[in-house]
Amino acid sequence: MFNIALLGAGRIGQVHAANIDAHKESTLYSVVDSYAPNATRLAEKYHARVQSVEQALADDNVHAVLIASSTDTHADLIEKAAIHNKPIFCEKPIHLDIARVRKCLSVVKENQVPLFIGFNRRYDPNFRKVRQAFINGTIGKAESLLIVSRDPSPPPVAYVNVSGGMLRDMTIHDFDMASYIMGEKPVAVFAKGSSLVDPEIGKAGDIDTAFVVITFESGAMATISNSRRSGYGYDQRIELHGEKGVLAAQNIRENSVEVWSEAGCVAAKPEHFFLQRYDAAYKAEWEHFIDVLKNGARPECSGADGELALYLADKAIESLMSGREVKL
Amino acid sequence: MFNIALLGAGRIGQVHAANIDAHKESTLYSVVDSYAPNATRLAEKYHARVQSVEQALADDNVHAVLIASSTDTHADLIEKAAIHNKPIFCEKPIHLDIARVRKCLSVVKENQVPLFIGFNRRYDPNFRKVRQAFINGTIGKAESLLIVSRDPSPPPVAYVNVSGGMLRDMTIHDFDMASYIMGEKPVAVFAKGSSLVDPEIGKAGDIDTAFVVITFESGAMATISNSRRSGYGYDQRIELHGEKGVLAAQNIRENSVEVWSEAGCVAAKPEHFFLQRYDAAYKAEWEHFIDVLKNGARPECSGADGELALYLADKAIESLMSGREVKL
Amino acid sequence: MFNIALLGAGRIGQVHAANIDAHKESTLYSVVDSYAPNATRLAEKYHARVQSVEQALADDNVHAVLIASSTDTHADLIEKAAIHNKPIFCEKPIHLDIARVRKCLSVVKENQVPLFIGFNRRYDPNFRKVRQAFINGTIGKAESLLIVSRDPSPPPVAYVNVSGGMLRDMTIHDFDMASYIMGEKPVAVFAKGSSLVDPEIGKAGDIDTAFVVITFESGAMATISNSRRSGYGYDQRIELHGEKGVLAAQNIRENSVEVWSEAGCVAAKPEHFFLQRYDAAYKAEWEHFIDVLKNGARPECSGADGELALYLADKAIESLMSGREVKL
Amino acid sequence: MFNIALLGAGRIGQVHAANIDAHKESTLYSVVDSYAPNATRLAEKYHARVQSVEQALADDNVHAVLIASSTDTHADLIEKAAIHNKPIFCEKPIHLDIARVRKCLSVVKENQVPLFIGFNRRYDPNFRKVRQAFINGTIGKAESLLIVSRDPSPPPVAYVNVSGGMLRDMTIHDFDMASYIMGEKPVAVFAKGSSLVDPEIGKAGDIDTAFVVITFESGAMATISNSRRSGYGYDQRIELHGEKGVLAAQNIRENSVEVWSEAGCVAAKPEHFFLQRYDAAYKAEWEHFIDVLKNGARPECSGADGELALYLADKAIESLMSGREVKL
Repeated sequence: MFNIALLGAGRIGQVHAANIDAHKESTLYSVVDSYAPNATRLAEKYHARVQSVEQALADDNVHAVLIASSTDTHADLIEKAAIHNKPIFCEKPIHLDIARVRKCLSVVKENQVPLFIGFNRRYDPNFRKVRQAFINGTIGKAESLLIVSRDPSPPPVAYVNVSGGMLRDMTIHDFDMASYIMGEKPVAVFAKGSSLVDPEIGKAGDIDTAFVVITFESGAMATISNSRRSGYGYDQRIELHGEKGVLAAQNIRENSVEVWSEAGCVAAKPEHFFLQRYDAAYKAEWEHFIDVLKNGARPECSGADGELALYLADKAIESLMSGREVKL
Repeated sequence: MFNIALLGAGRIGQVHAANIDAHKESTLYSVVDSYAPNATRLAEKYHARVQSVEQALADDNVHAVLIASSTDTHADLIEKAAIHNKPIFCEKPIHLDIARVRKCLSVVKENQVPLFIGFNRRYDPNFRKVRQAFINGTIGKAESLLIVSRDPSPPPVAYVNVSGGMLRDMTIHDFDMASYIMGEKPVAVFAKGSSLVDPEIGKAGDIDTAFVVITFESGAMATISNSRRSGYGYDQRIELHGEKGVLAAQNIRENSVEVWSEAGCVAAKPEHFFLQRYDAAYKAEWEHFIDVLKNGARPECSGADGELALYLADKAIESLMSGREVKL
Repeated sequence: MFNIALLGAGRIGQVHAANIDAHKESTLYSVVDSYAPNATRLAEKYHARVQSVEQALADDNVHAVLIASSTDTHADLIEKAAIHNKPIFCEKPIHLDIARVRKCLSVVKENQVPLFIGFNRRYDPNFRKVRQAFINGTIGKAESLLIVSRDPSPPPVAYVNVSGGMLRDMTIHDFDMASYIMGEKPVAVFAKGSSLVDPEIGKAGDIDTAFVVITFESGAMATISNSRRSGYGYDQRIELHGEKGVLAAQNIRENSVEVWSEAGCVAAKPEHFFLQRYDAAYKAEWEHFIDVLKNGARPECSGADGELALYLADKAIESLMSGREVKL
Repeated sequence: MFNIALLGAGRIGQVHAANIDAHKESTLYSVVDSYAPNATRLAEKYHARVQSVEQALADDNVHAVLIASSTDTHADLIEKAAIHNKPIFCEKPIHLDIARVRKCLSVVKENQVPLFIGFNRRYDPNFRKVRQAFINGTIGKAESLLIVSRDPSPPPVAYVNVSGGMLRDMTIHDFDMASYIMGEKPVAVFAKGSSLVDPEIGKAGDIDTAFVVITFESGAMATISNSRRSGYGYDQRIELHGEKGVLAAQNIRENSVEVWSEAGCVAAKPEHFFLQRYDAAYKAEWEHFIDVLKNGARPECSGADGELALYLADKAIESLMSGREVKL
């Protein structure tokens, strides 16, 4: 049984707390949150204790940490945990500044601590099946990948202001997905964006609608279509086109009911947002982390993957500014 | 080039006129209709002449007749055409009285004239593909067949009164479809019906909603779900379940456009009614009849098929009245 | 926190054990199974104790029982639990003999103990949505219901021999579903069956393929299409046709991935069997039972519902034997 | 009745010949083809005469010309027809050189002859429905458009060599579609391409896989995903995302039959290629041209549209070469 200290008791921390608790080989041992009531509430729910970061890291009963605190604290906490030799599960991103990411990863390397970055979508059973079928040769060599990724509704501008911008905050998932599915080295990136959804986002200097084109070593390409607001739930689809055909992961609908009437044949919308859509993915990534803890498995989604996704985001921003494709 | 005399210039006659005219090996030679303006209008449209039944049958330039007049005239016209040695394409049914059907078919037999009965649905490319895939062994031995067949809206009671009842008028198509798909002998039939759609239909002594269960020699079964009113267009589906799986012919939609919004994901309704849904089938059955005329092909859908479908309808009515399954 | 004694530690007992354990207001207190190793294994997994029936019923710490033992023990256990005043969750069916069912229910009534019958499919979120949309008037008055229900593969003959026959064992779920969706009184039933899937089943005197037609008070009808073997996973669909259109609950697929190639566009099969397909339903019915325990809610699926489903099965068997529709 | 001279009796000429002949207000009057046997065969089929270009243009009985000859002859023929005052239906493109296109259009303008450019996809009923629903406000303001357009299999290199390159030959249809759907001015274009399908195409200096991003005045964007080979038929889809949701035109399948088995649920592939997929579109564009001839309707798809699509292709090639987005 692995005792886990959860650093961060917000929305995503609560998702992880439930999965830690539900897994038969892990226990939510303690909760850390700078806002005490959050920590207390979550700790009580799962019969865990409240600790400070320092207490948690000094506690020999803590076998690993899960970092789900605000983005700006990730790199510091990773380094501290690494120094205390605690295996780390950290929510994406490591940091919004790539130099800081690199320094952080060097600390992790020095301390030889396993670090898993929670790009949850890699654990969606459907996307994994696409990756697996591709590796198995179902469609032959990959040629083009389409990723459609749209949130149900835009975040508040206050969030946008600290997010690092849409490409670093939202598209970063799609950069990682493109790397994961293609499994080869990206060599160039082009990005184009507009603020169409919410003029306040534009005023804040960010975009809310984007198209990105990534080129890989083999000449294969990926395109990402992003929006901060879909109007019909959480749109999360990928289509990989190869020499023998397409592997497509379609949206997951809220239910299987259809209404046929004079108005047409109405099926349910896609699942509302990530909590619903990626419920199985969050459980599966935790299962993988248990495998890391128990069997010494190598984290499938590593610090290097986190770095690569941020690097792609940075270069995409450079492309967005310059109107040029940026070589990597 | 085959000259065709069209007997009956109503709605379905007009469909056939267009197909006769469009086919490169047939010409609409003449139009016959007891209501003169109808005959004239259609004849003018296709540069054909107006004839009486007698003129058409006596005319050596007429190579075949297409009977699309009112149901009660079919048997008489078939007999007359047979005696005049004109190959016959006749809309279903031959007659509503099975004794009359049998007498009529004996006249056809004596005169050795090809008779094709226009069960158009057999020529729907999708249903044919189901039949063909079944014959090819795609799903192995047949076990159960589901036919859903619903009209968009109920006919006027005046029509119901002369229709022979829902089972002889509407379900007869599904009886023929069941025979066509299964390709084996039916041995029992059970029917259950209600008037739920239009109370006037009930008052007229007919039903507008029906379930029929047919059992075949092998023990395989078919069920038919009928309604005079769907509320969402023309519902025409079949599902054949066999030992290895299902062959399903889904509805044909009005178009391929979907609207995804907060209200759900809306696809188009099924095609409105038979003119749209079976457009390709009407063309294909005419192609087959040309093959009968030109190459002496045996009519795939014969007088015997017409008789069997009516026999099933009669026995279904007997079951409806008695609450018993009727052995055939 | 409610302590639950689980009577029966087989396949379905294990499903319930997991849900009891996972629910924050219930604990798996004890496990009872005539085969000791089964009881021990499950008890250990959830830190519960092993008890005998008598111990469990005499134990004041046991707040309710869940009966998941073999069918022939249900009625006896229900009665014993009722006498000991323990609220009861019992897997379907109560008993295969309707007289025994009625006697059992009278004991329950005398002791005024809540009894919930686990017709799990009522708790499938999709079927519930159909029911709810129907009640809300989405399609107006109900006219015809189609239930397709096919297991992935047939059970061994040894099971068939003690099952009470397909109509009492398998179709009973669909009888309950028809009652649940329609919400009105059935007045007649017709059943037709064959042994097409496995000749051994036929030799054992049972059928493996069935069509059933149920008529309700309003004249609305339901048809059930059953097979012991689908060839493509667990086929579980319903379509309710009403005056304004159709409410359809389609199959749930194993995943959302499609492969498009020269061979066509391949989507995943339906979920394999009930453990996968009704995972959410098992959780939801347990949630309801907690509501019964905690808030005194009336069991939505009662002994009377269990009795009705068995009664319909008995009458369907009578119809199967006689070739007549049976009035209820 | 309008007499049409068909210039060019190849594959696409034959499609138009059939539609001219089938339309009740047009007749195939004459056929012109530099390869005499082609002209003769088609003329005989439709009881038309064979003419030279000069004869056809000088013939007062010719009311309009349909240009379906090889691409390099279009501009010359348009000019000649314009000078002879014959209304013109011309297959895309006008010419591969934009200067030549502009000169040609000035001749048309001088002679005030109606010129319709056959971008057939605009007449696909599904894409038109998307455009219409967008205009009607179904999804509000447009934000992003996805066009997937893949041919079933690559053309021979001999064709590639004279095609003007993939962007001018194939993507030109998608440039026109993007303009048609968005209905606003494009302001920038970025293109990225690879030769992945056939190395011979790469050796010939062309690409066979492309992603294009077009930006419009409002900030809305469109992306095009192209391949010379799909592996699963003709993939022709568009998705327009706006503030309230998506309008999607899905592929048209070869038929509505599905096979469900252990291997999954297999639906038919998309229609094979343009002759099948755009059958209705070819008929509809002819209907429109009849409206131009008969009622003086303004050609909906004009010389200016042909010029714009080629201009976008040219600028996309410039982007492809430079790795920069090109401002328009």
